[in-house]
Amino acid sequence: MTINVIPTAQQAQDIDFSGKVAVVIDVLRATSVITTALDNGADKVFSVKTIEEAQSLYSQFDASMVLRGGERHAVRIEGFDFGNSPLEYTRERVGGKTLILTTTNGTNAINNVKGADEVVLACFRNAEAVVNYVIERLTQCDSRDVTIVCAGTEGRFSLDDGLCAGMLIDLLQQKAQVELDDLGILVSHYYNENKSNLLGALLGCFHLKRLCSLGFVDDVGFCLEANSVATVPVLFLHEPAAFRNAMGG
Amino acid sequence: MTINVIPTAQQAQDIDFSGKVAVVIDVLRATSVITTALDNGADKVFSVKTIEEAQSLYSQFDASMVLRGGERHAVRIEGFDFGNSPLEYTRERVGGKTLILTTTNGTNAINNVKGADEVVLACFRNAEAVVNYVIERLTQCDSRDVTIVCAGTEGRFSLDDGLCAGMLIDLLQQKAQVELDDLGILVSHYYNENKSNLLGALLGCFHLKRLCSLGFVDDVGFCLEANSVATVPVLFLHEPAAFRNAMGG
Repeated sequence: MTINVIPTAQQAQDIDFSGKVAVVIDVLRATSVITTALDNGADKVFSVKTIEEAQSLYSQFDASMVLRGGERHAVRIEGFDFGNSPLEYTRERVGGKTLILTTTNGTNAINNVKGADEVVLACFRNAEAVVNYVIERLTQCDSRDVTIVCAGTEGRFSLDDGLCAGMLIDLLQQKAQVELDDLGILVSHYYNENKSNLLGALLGCFHLKRLCSLGFVDDVGFCLEANSVATVPVLFLHEPAAFRNAMGG
Repeated sequence: MTINVIPTAQQAQDIDFSGKVAVVIDVLRATSVITTALDNGADKVFSVKTIEEAQSLYSQFDASMVLRGGERHAVRIEGFDFGNSPLEYTRERVGGKTLILTTTNGTNAINNVKGADEVVLACFRNAEAVVNYVIERLTQCDSRDVTIVCAGTEGRFSLDDGLCAGMLIDLLQQKAQVELDDLGILVSHYYNENKSNLLGALLGCFHLKRLCSLGFVDDVGFCLEANSVATVPVLFLHEPAAFRNAMGG
Protein backbone atom coordinates (compact mmCIF):
# COMPACT_ATOMS: atom_id res chain seq x y z
CA MET A 1 0.00 0.00 0.00
CA THR A 2 1.26 3.47 -0.88
CA ILE A 3 0.32 6.33 1.43
CA ASN A 4 0.55 9.93 0.28
CA VAL A 5 0.06 12.85 2.66
CA ILE A 6 -1.19 16.19 1.35
CA PRO A 7 -0.36 19.19 3.57
CA THR A 8 -3.34 21.46 2.87
CA ALA A 9 -6.89 21.58 1.54
CA GLN A 10 -5.64 23.88 -1.22
CA GLN A 11 -3.08 21.37 -2.46
CA ALA A 12 -5.78 18.68 -2.58
CA GLN A 13 -7.27 20.57 -5.53
CA ASP A 14 -4.26 19.59 -7.65
CA ILE A 15 -4.36 15.88 -6.77
CA ASP A 16 -5.82 13.10 -8.91
CA PHE A 17 -7.73 10.92 -6.44
CA SER A 18 -9.06 8.42 -8.98
CA GLY A 19 -8.54 4.84 -7.85
CA LYS A 20 -7.59 5.98 -4.34
CA VAL A 21 -9.11 5.88 -0.89
CA ALA A 22 -9.03 9.45 0.46
CA VAL A 23 -8.88 10.12 4.19
CA VAL A 24 -9.50 13.74 5.20
CA ILE A 25 -8.30 15.07 8.57
CA ASP A 26 -9.27 18.34 10.24
CA VAL A 27 -8.64 17.53 13.88
CA LEU A 28 -9.44 21.08 15.04
CA ARG A 29 -12.27 20.72 14.39
CA ALA A 30 -14.42 19.80 11.36
CA THR A 31 -13.73 16.06 11.16
CA SER A 32 -13.95 15.78 14.96
CA VAL A 33 -17.35 17.53 14.75
CA ILE A 34 -18.71 15.29 11.98
CA THR A 35 -17.44 12.15 13.72
CA THR A 36 -19.06 13.28 16.98
CA ALA A 37 -22.37 14.23 15.36
CA LEU A 38 -22.67 10.86 13.60
CA ASP A 39 -21.51 9.06 16.73
CA ASN A 40 -24.30 10.79 18.61
CA GLY A 41 -26.88 9.57 16.14
CA ALA A 42 -27.13 12.25 13.46
CA ASP A 43 -28.58 10.60 10.36
CA LYS A 44 -26.26 12.24 7.86
CA VAL A 45 -23.96 15.25 7.53
CA PHE A 46 -23.60 17.51 4.52
CA SER A 47 -20.24 19.26 4.19
CA VAL A 48 -20.58 22.44 2.10
CA LYS A 49 -18.14 25.20 1.18
CA THR A 50 -20.21 28.36 1.56
CA ILE A 51 -22.84 29.79 3.88
CA GLU A 52 -25.05 30.33 0.81
CA GLU A 53 -24.85 26.63 -0.09
CA ALA A 54 -25.74 25.75 3.49
CA GLN A 55 -28.82 28.01 3.38
CA SER A 56 -29.92 26.72 -0.01
CA LEU A 57 -29.62 23.08 1.09
CA TYR A 58 -31.36 23.86 4.40
CA SER A 59 -34.41 25.20 2.58
CA GLN A 60 -34.90 21.81 0.89
CA PHE A 61 -35.50 19.98 4.18
CA ASP A 62 -38.31 19.84 6.73
CA ALA A 63 -37.04 22.46 9.20
CA SER A 64 -37.72 20.20 12.20
CA MET A 65 -35.30 17.57 10.89
CA VAL A 66 -32.33 19.66 9.82
CA LEU A 67 -29.66 21.61 11.70
CA ARG A 68 -26.97 24.01 10.54
CA GLY A 69 -23.50 24.19 12.04
CA GLY A 70 -20.29 25.98 11.26
CA GLU A 71 -17.90 28.84 11.77
CA ARG A 72 -15.93 31.52 10.07
CA HIS A 73 -12.66 32.33 11.83
CA ALA A 74 -13.68 30.14 14.78
CA VAL A 75 -16.93 32.11 15.40
CA ARG A 76 -20.41 30.56 14.97
CA ILE A 77 -22.28 31.72 11.85
CA GLU A 78 -25.24 33.97 12.67
CA GLY A 79 -28.55 32.13 12.72
CA PHE A 80 -26.92 28.68 12.75
CA ASP A 81 -27.77 26.07 15.43
CA PHE A 82 -24.17 25.21 16.24
CA GLY A 83 -20.69 26.59 16.00
CA ASN A 84 -17.74 24.29 15.36
CA SER A 85 -17.30 22.87 18.86
CA PRO A 86 -17.80 19.08 18.88
CA LEU A 87 -19.06 19.37 22.48
CA GLU A 88 -22.21 21.11 21.21
CA TYR A 89 -23.23 18.16 19.03
CA THR A 90 -24.91 16.10 21.78
CA ARG A 91 -27.16 13.09 21.24
CA GLU A 92 -30.13 15.12 22.52
CA ARG A 93 -29.64 17.76 19.89
CA VAL A 94 -28.47 15.84 16.81
CA GLY A 95 -30.02 12.35 17.24
CA GLY A 96 -31.97 11.40 14.08
CA LYS A 97 -31.33 14.77 12.44
CA THR A 98 -29.67 15.89 9.24
CA LEU A 99 -26.73 18.26 9.76
CA ILE A 100 -25.38 20.82 7.30
CA LEU A 101 -21.85 21.98 8.16
CA THR A 102 -19.64 24.70 6.69
CA THR A 103 -16.27 25.68 8.19
CA THR A 104 -13.29 27.81 7.15
CA ASN A 105 -10.86 24.99 6.35
CA GLY A 106 -12.25 21.52 7.03
CA THR A 107 -15.26 21.49 4.74
CA ASN A 108 -13.09 22.98 1.97
CA ALA A 109 -10.62 20.14 2.35
CA ILE A 110 -13.45 17.61 2.20
CA ASN A 111 -14.96 19.19 -0.89
CA ASN A 112 -11.62 19.50 -2.66
CA VAL A 113 -11.37 15.70 -2.81
CA LYS A 114 -12.87 14.75 -6.16
CA GLY A 115 -13.18 11.36 -7.78
CA ALA A 116 -11.75 9.13 -5.04
CA ASP A 117 -13.06 5.56 -4.77
CA GLU A 118 -13.99 6.38 -1.19
CA VAL A 119 -13.87 9.47 1.04
CA VAL A 120 -13.44 8.80 4.76
CA LEU A 121 -13.14 11.38 7.57
CA ALA A 122 -10.63 10.86 10.35
CA CYS A 123 -9.60 12.49 13.60
CA PHE A 124 -7.83 11.23 16.72
CA ARG A 125 -11.15 10.10 18.19
CA ASN A 126 -11.86 7.55 15.46
CA ALA A 127 -8.34 6.83 14.17
CA GLU A 128 -8.31 3.09 14.88
CA ALA A 129 -11.85 2.62 13.52
CA VAL A 130 -10.88 4.48 10.33
CA VAL A 131 -7.81 2.30 9.84
CA ASN A 132 -9.82 -0.91 10.29
CA TYR A 133 -12.38 0.36 7.81
CA VAL A 134 -9.75 1.41 5.26
CA ILE A 135 -7.96 -1.94 5.43
CA GLU A 136 -11.27 -3.71 4.85
CA ARG A 137 -12.18 -1.45 1.92
CA LEU A 138 -8.80 -1.83 0.24
CA THR A 139 -9.38 -5.57 0.03
CA GLN A 140 -12.92 -5.08 -1.31
CA CYS A 141 -12.22 -2.48 -3.99
CA ASP A 142 -9.28 -2.37 -6.36
CA SER A 143 -7.56 0.53 -4.58
CA ARG A 144 -4.07 0.00 -3.28
CA ASP A 145 -3.34 3.59 -2.44
CA VAL A 146 -4.44 5.83 0.42
CA THR A 147 -4.17 9.60 0.16
CA ILE A 148 -4.41 11.42 3.48
CA VAL A 149 -5.49 15.05 3.12
CA CYS A 150 -4.57 17.32 6.03
CA ALA A 151 -7.00 20.26 5.97
CA GLY A 152 -4.54 22.78 7.37
CA THR A 153 -5.31 26.22 8.73
CA GLU A 154 -5.72 29.25 6.50
CA GLY A 155 -3.92 27.61 3.64
CA ARG A 156 -0.98 26.43 5.75
CA PHE A 157 0.04 23.00 7.05
CA SER A 158 -1.27 22.37 10.57
CA LEU A 159 0.63 20.14 12.99
CA ASP A 160 -2.51 18.68 14.62
CA ASP A 161 -3.60 17.23 11.28
CA GLY A 162 -0.06 16.04 10.54
CA LEU A 163 0.23 14.30 13.92
CA CYS A 164 -3.08 12.53 13.31
CA ALA A 165 -1.87 11.48 9.84
CA GLY A 166 1.19 10.05 11.58
CA MET A 167 -1.07 8.07 13.92
CA LEU A 168 -3.09 6.66 11.01
CA ILE A 169 0.15 5.63 9.28
CA ASP A 170 1.41 3.95 12.45
CA LEU A 171 -1.83 1.97 12.76
CA LEU A 172 -1.84 1.06 9.04
CA GLN A 173 1.77 -0.14 9.31
CA GLN A 174 0.70 -2.57 12.02
CA LYS A 175 -1.67 -4.24 9.54
CA ALA A 176 -0.07 -3.91 6.11
CA GLN A 177 3.12 -3.35 4.15
CA VAL A 178 3.24 0.42 3.66
CA GLU A 179 5.24 2.72 1.39
CA LEU A 180 5.30 6.38 2.42
CA ASP A 181 5.79 9.59 0.49
CA ASP A 182 8.11 12.28 1.84
CA LEU A 183 5.57 14.10 4.02
CA GLY A 184 4.34 10.71 5.24
CA ILE A 185 7.88 9.89 6.43
CA LEU A 186 8.04 13.19 8.30
CA VAL A 187 4.67 13.00 10.09
CA SER A 188 5.14 9.31 10.85
CA HIS A 189 8.49 10.05 12.48
CA TYR A 190 7.03 12.91 14.53
CA TYR A 191 4.09 10.79 15.70
CA ASN A 192 6.31 7.91 16.73
CA GLU A 193 8.54 10.21 18.76
CA ASN A 194 5.52 11.78 20.48
CA LYS A 195 2.81 9.11 20.64
CA SER A 196 2.85 8.99 24.43
CA ASN A 197 2.12 12.72 24.71
CA LEU A 198 -0.05 14.08 21.89
CA LEU A 199 -0.79 17.35 23.66
CA GLY A 200 2.90 17.92 24.36
CA ALA A 201 3.66 17.39 20.67
CA LEU A 202 1.18 20.10 19.75
CA LEU A 203 2.10 22.85 22.21
CA GLY A 204 3.72 24.86 19.40
CA CYS A 205 0.82 24.33 16.99
CA PHE A 206 -0.59 27.66 15.77
CA HIS A 207 -4.20 26.50 15.49
CA LEU A 208 -4.21 24.81 18.89
CA LYS A 209 -2.82 27.95 20.53
CA ARG A 210 -5.44 30.09 18.83
CA LEU A 211 -8.33 27.86 19.89
CA CYS A 212 -7.07 27.86 23.48
CA SER A 213 -6.78 31.66 23.43
CA LEU A 214 -10.39 31.84 22.20
CA GLY A 215 -11.53 29.72 25.16
CA PHE A 216 -11.88 26.35 23.39
CA VAL A 217 -9.52 24.46 25.72
CA ASP A 218 -12.14 21.76 26.38
CA ASP A 219 -12.54 21.23 22.64
CA VAL A 220 -8.82 20.59 22.32
CA GLY A 221 -8.89 18.02 25.12
CA PHE A 222 -11.91 16.30 23.56
CA CYS A 223 -10.36 16.24 20.06
CA LEU A 224 -7.17 14.62 21.40
CA GLU A 225 -9.00 11.67 23.03
CA ALA A 226 -7.59 9.06 20.68
CA ASN A 227 -9.57 5.96 19.69
CA SER A 228 -12.57 6.85 21.80
CA VAL A 229 -15.32 6.13 19.24
CA ALA A 230 -16.00 3.51 16.53
CA THR A 231 -17.79 5.85 14.13
CA VAL A 232 -16.40 6.18 10.58
CA PRO A 233 -17.89 9.01 8.46
CA VAL A 234 -17.96 7.90 4.82
CA LEU A 235 -19.26 9.84 1.85
CA PHE A 236 -22.29 8.14 0.33
CA LEU A 237 -22.43 9.31 -3.24
CA HIS A 238 -26.18 9.00 -3.86
CA GLU A 239 -27.38 12.55 -4.54
CA PRO A 240 -27.32 14.63 -2.56
CA ALA A 241 -23.94 13.25 -1.38
CA ALA A 242 -23.61 13.19 2.41
CA PHE A 243 -21.53 11.57 5.12
CA ARG A 244 -23.02 8.70 7.08
CA ASN A 245 -21.56 6.42 9.69
CA ALA A 246 -20.23 3.37 7.81
CA MET A 247 -20.34 1.45 11.11
CA GLY A 248 -23.94 2.27 11.86
CA GLY A 249 -27.08 0.13 11.37
CA MET B 1 12.40 36.07 14.63
CA THR B 2 9.53 34.13 13.11
CA ILE B 3 10.36 31.37 10.65
CA ASN B 4 7.72 30.03 8.27
CA VAL B 5 8.34 27.00 6.09
CA ILE B 6 6.48 26.61 2.79
CA PRO B 7 6.27 23.01 1.52
CA THR B 8 6.24 23.59 -2.25
CA ALA B 9 7.01 26.07 -5.01
CA GLN B 10 3.31 26.09 -5.87
CA GLN B 11 2.28 27.17 -2.37
CA ALA B 12 4.81 30.01 -2.51
CA GLN B 13 2.55 31.67 -5.09
CA ASP B 14 -0.05 32.28 -2.37
CA ILE B 15 2.37 33.81 0.16
CA ASP B 16 2.85 37.50 0.83
CA PHE B 17 6.63 37.93 1.12
CA SER B 18 6.63 41.68 1.67
CA GLY B 19 8.84 42.69 4.57
CA LYS B 20 10.37 39.20 4.74
CA VAL B 21 13.67 37.58 3.96
CA ALA B 22 12.95 34.62 1.67
CA VAL B 23 15.27 31.61 1.58
CA VAL B 24 14.63 29.17 -1.27
CA ILE B 25 15.86 25.57 -1.08
CA ASP B 26 16.04 23.03 -3.88
CA VAL B 27 18.74 20.69 -2.62
CA LEU B 28 18.34 18.27 -5.54
CA ARG B 29 19.46 20.23 -7.42
CA ALA B 30 18.81 23.82 -8.55
CA THR B 31 20.05 25.74 -5.49
CA SER B 32 23.05 23.39 -5.19
CA VAL B 33 23.81 24.11 -8.85
CA ILE B 34 23.54 27.91 -8.51
CA THR B 35 25.61 27.89 -5.33
CA THR B 36 28.28 25.77 -7.03
CA ALA B 37 28.34 27.88 -10.21
CA LEU B 38 28.78 31.11 -8.24
CA ASP B 39 31.31 29.44 -5.93
CA ASN B 40 33.27 28.47 -9.03
CA GLY B 41 33.36 32.04 -10.22
CA ALA B 42 30.30 32.49 -12.42
CA ASP B 43 29.56 36.20 -12.57
CA LYS B 44 25.81 35.93 -12.20
CA VAL B 45 22.99 33.40 -12.60
CA PHE B 46 19.57 34.04 -14.11
CA SER B 47 16.82 31.73 -12.89
CA VAL B 48 14.01 31.53 -15.45
CA LYS B 49 10.82 29.48 -15.65
CA THR B 50 10.68 28.41 -19.28
CA ILE B 51 13.02 27.22 -21.99
CA GLU B 52 11.68 30.04 -24.19
CA GLU B 53 12.64 32.65 -21.58
CA ALA B 54 16.10 31.11 -21.38
CA GLN B 55 16.54 31.34 -25.16
CA SER B 56 15.23 34.90 -25.30
CA LEU B 57 17.59 36.04 -22.52
CA TYR B 58 20.49 34.14 -24.10
CA SER B 59 20.12 36.05 -27.35
CA GLN B 60 20.71 39.33 -25.49
CA PHE B 61 24.26 38.38 -24.45
CA ASP B 62 27.58 37.99 -26.22
CA ALA B 63 27.51 34.24 -26.92
CA SER B 64 31.09 33.79 -25.66
CA MET B 65 30.12 35.05 -22.20
CA VAL B 66 26.86 33.23 -21.54
CA LEU B 67 25.96 29.60 -20.80
CA ARG B 68 22.63 27.81 -20.57
CA GLY B 69 21.88 25.08 -18.06
CA GLY B 70 18.84 23.14 -17.01
CA GLU B 71 16.67 20.07 -17.22
CA ARG B 72 13.19 18.82 -17.74
CA HIS B 73 12.41 15.63 -15.78
CA ALA B 74 16.09 15.33 -14.82
CA VAL B 75 17.26 15.29 -18.48
CA ARG B 76 19.46 18.06 -19.99
CA ILE B 77 17.62 20.41 -22.35
CA GLU B 78 18.68 19.96 -25.98
CA GLY B 79 21.26 22.50 -27.12
CA PHE B 80 22.06 23.65 -23.57
CA ASP B 81 25.62 23.69 -22.23
CA PHE B 82 24.80 21.95 -18.95
CA GLY B 83 22.20 19.72 -17.40
CA ASN B 84 21.31 20.08 -13.73
CA SER B 85 24.28 18.28 -12.18
CA PRO B 86 26.31 20.63 -9.96
CA LEU B 87 29.42 18.59 -10.81
CA GLU B 88 29.30 19.93 -14.39
CA TYR B 89 29.62 23.55 -13.24
CA THR B 90 33.41 23.59 -12.85
CA ARG B 91 35.57 26.69 -12.47
CA GLU B 92 37.05 26.03 -15.91
CA ARG B 93 33.67 26.13 -17.57
CA VAL B 94 31.74 28.79 -15.61
CA GLY B 95 34.44 31.16 -14.33
CA GLY B 96 33.60 34.76 -15.29
CA LYS B 97 30.54 33.70 -17.27
CA THR B 98 26.84 34.51 -17.05
CA LEU B 99 24.63 31.46 -16.52
CA ILE B 100 20.96 31.10 -17.47
CA LEU B 101 19.26 28.22 -15.64
CA THR B 102 15.81 26.68 -16.00
CA THR B 103 14.72 23.55 -14.12
CA THR B 104 11.46 21.68 -13.50
CA ASN B 105 10.95 22.70 -9.86
CA GLY B 106 13.75 24.82 -8.46
CA THR B 107 13.65 27.81 -10.77
CA ASN B 108 9.85 27.86 -10.44
CA ALA B 109 10.19 28.05 -6.66
CA ILE B 110 12.69 30.88 -6.99
CA ASN B 111 10.49 32.82 -9.39
CA ASN B 112 7.36 32.31 -7.30
CA VAL B 113 8.88 34.44 -4.53
CA LYS B 114 7.65 37.95 -5.22
CA GLY B 115 8.21 41.12 -3.24
CA ALA B 116 10.53 39.83 -0.50
CA ASP B 117 13.05 42.25 1.01
CA GLU B 118 15.73 39.77 0.05
CA VAL B 119 15.84 36.44 -1.82
CA VAL B 120 18.62 34.06 -0.77
CA LEU B 121 19.31 30.56 -2.12
CA ALA B 122 20.29 27.78 0.25
CA CYS B 123 21.36 24.16 0.12
CA PHE B 124 23.29 21.91 2.48
CA ARG B 125 26.60 23.05 0.95
CA ASN B 126 26.17 26.69 2.00
CA ALA B 127 23.77 26.36 4.96
CA GLU B 128 26.00 27.98 7.59
CA ALA B 129 27.03 30.81 5.24
CA VAL B 130 23.38 31.50 4.44
CA VAL B 131 22.47 31.64 8.13
CA ASN B 132 25.29 34.06 8.90
CA TYR B 133 24.21 36.24 5.98
CA VAL B 134 20.53 36.17 6.98
CA ILE B 135 21.30 37.11 10.60
CA GLU B 136 23.37 40.04 9.39
CA ARG B 137 20.69 41.19 6.94
CA LEU B 138 17.91 41.01 9.53
CA THR B 139 19.78 43.49 11.65
CA GLN B 140 20.40 45.80 8.66
CA CYS B 141 16.90 45.86 7.20
CA ASP B 142 13.63 46.05 9.09
CA SER B 143 12.69 42.41 8.47
CA ARG B 144 12.07 40.21 11.44
CA ASP B 145 10.67 37.25 9.57
CA VAL B 146 12.27 34.56 7.46
CA THR B 147 10.21 32.49 5.06
CA ILE B 148 11.88 29.31 3.88
CA VAL B 149 10.47 28.01 0.59
CA CYS B 150 11.07 24.32 -0.09
CA ALA B 151 10.90 23.84 -3.87
CA GLY B 152 9.50 20.31 -3.68
CA THR B 153 9.28 17.81 -6.51
CA GLU B 154 6.49 17.83 -9.06
CA GLY B 155 4.24 19.88 -6.82
CA ARG B 156 4.83 17.71 -3.74
CA PHE B 157 6.84 18.30 -0.55
CA SER B 158 10.34 16.84 -0.81
CA LEU B 159 12.16 15.55 2.26
CA ASP B 160 15.61 16.71 1.10
CA ASP B 161 14.43 20.32 1.06
CA GLY B 162 12.64 19.85 4.40
CA LEU B 163 15.74 18.38 6.04
CA CYS B 164 17.82 21.33 4.80
CA ALA B 165 15.17 23.74 6.14
CA GLY B 166 15.54 21.93 9.49
CA MET B 167 19.29 22.48 9.36
CA LEU B 168 18.88 26.22 8.65
CA ILE B 169 16.45 26.47 11.57
CA ASP B 170 18.88 24.66 13.87
CA LEU B 171 21.67 27.07 12.90
CA LEU B 172 19.40 30.13 13.23
CA GLN B 173 18.32 28.95 16.69
CA GLN B 174 21.94 28.97 17.78
CA LYS B 175 22.13 32.70 17.02
CA ALA B 176 18.68 34.11 17.71
CA GLN B 177 15.37 33.67 19.51
CA VAL B 178 13.21 31.84 16.99
CA GLU B 179 9.47 31.16 16.70
CA LEU B 180 8.50 28.38 14.31
CA ASP B 181 5.37 27.66 12.32
CA ASP B 182 3.91 24.14 12.25
CA LEU B 183 5.95 22.81 9.33
CA GLY B 184 9.01 24.45 10.85
CA ILE B 185 8.47 22.46 14.06
CA LEU B 186 8.21 19.25 12.06
CA VAL B 187 11.31 19.69 9.87
CA SER B 188 13.33 21.02 12.79
CA HIS B 189 12.49 17.95 14.84
CA TYR B 190 13.38 15.61 11.96
CA TYR B 191 16.70 17.35 11.36
CA ASN B 192 17.66 17.25 15.02
CA GLU B 193 16.93 13.52 15.21
CA ASN B 194 18.98 12.85 12.06
CA LYS B 195 21.70 15.49 11.95
CA SER B 196 24.49 12.95 12.33
CA ASN B 197 23.33 11.00 9.26
CA LEU B 198 21.76 13.17 6.56
CA LEU B 199 21.90 10.46 3.90
CA GLY B 200 20.27 7.96 6.23
CA ALA B 201 17.45 10.44 6.90
CA LEU B 202 16.79 10.70 3.17
CA LEU B 203 16.83 7.04 2.14
CA GLY B 204 13.04 7.08 1.75
CA CYS B 205 13.02 10.37 -0.17
CA PHE B 206 11.32 9.99 -3.56
CA HIS B 207 13.49 12.50 -5.40
CA LEU B 208 16.75 11.11 -4.01
CA LYS B 209 15.76 7.58 -5.02
CA ARG B 210 14.86 8.77 -8.52
CA LEU B 211 18.13 10.62 -9.01
CA CYS B 212 20.10 7.58 -7.84
CA SER B 213 18.15 5.34 -10.24
CA LEU B 214 19.02 7.76 -13.08
CA GLY B 215 22.73 7.45 -12.25
CA PHE B 216 23.18 10.71 -10.30
CA VAL B 217 24.54 9.09 -7.13
CA ASP B 218 27.62 11.35 -7.15
CA ASP B 219 25.35 14.41 -7.34
CA VAL B 220 23.52 13.27 -4.23
CA GLY B 221 26.78 12.83 -2.31
CA PHE B 222 27.98 16.27 -3.44
CA CYS B 223 24.69 17.97 -2.53
CA LEU B 224 24.78 16.49 1.00
CA GLU B 225 28.27 17.88 1.80
CA ALA B 226 27.05 20.30 4.45
CA ASN B 227 28.81 23.63 5.05
CA SER B 228 31.44 23.08 2.42
CA VAL B 229 31.30 26.51 0.75
CA ALA B 230 30.93 30.16 1.84
CA THR B 231 29.00 31.33 -1.24
CA VAL B 232 25.58 32.93 -0.71
CA PRO B 233 23.49 33.47 -3.86
CA VAL B 234 21.39 36.62 -3.41
CA LEU B 235 19.01 38.18 -5.90
CA PHE B 236 20.24 41.57 -7.04
CA LEU B 237 17.18 43.42 -8.20
CA HIS B 238 18.79 45.72 -10.76
CA GLU B 239 17.25 44.77 -14.10
CA PRO B 240 17.69 42.22 -15.34
CA ALA B 241 17.50 40.65 -11.85
CA ALA B 242 20.07 37.92 -11.31
CA PHE B 243 21.72 36.00 -8.48
CA ARG B 244 25.21 36.98 -7.48
CA ASN B 245 27.44 35.78 -4.66
CA ALA B 246 26.83 38.17 -1.76
CA MET B 247 30.14 37.04 -0.28
CA GLY B 248 32.16 37.72 -3.40
CA GLY B 249 34.39 40.71 -4.21
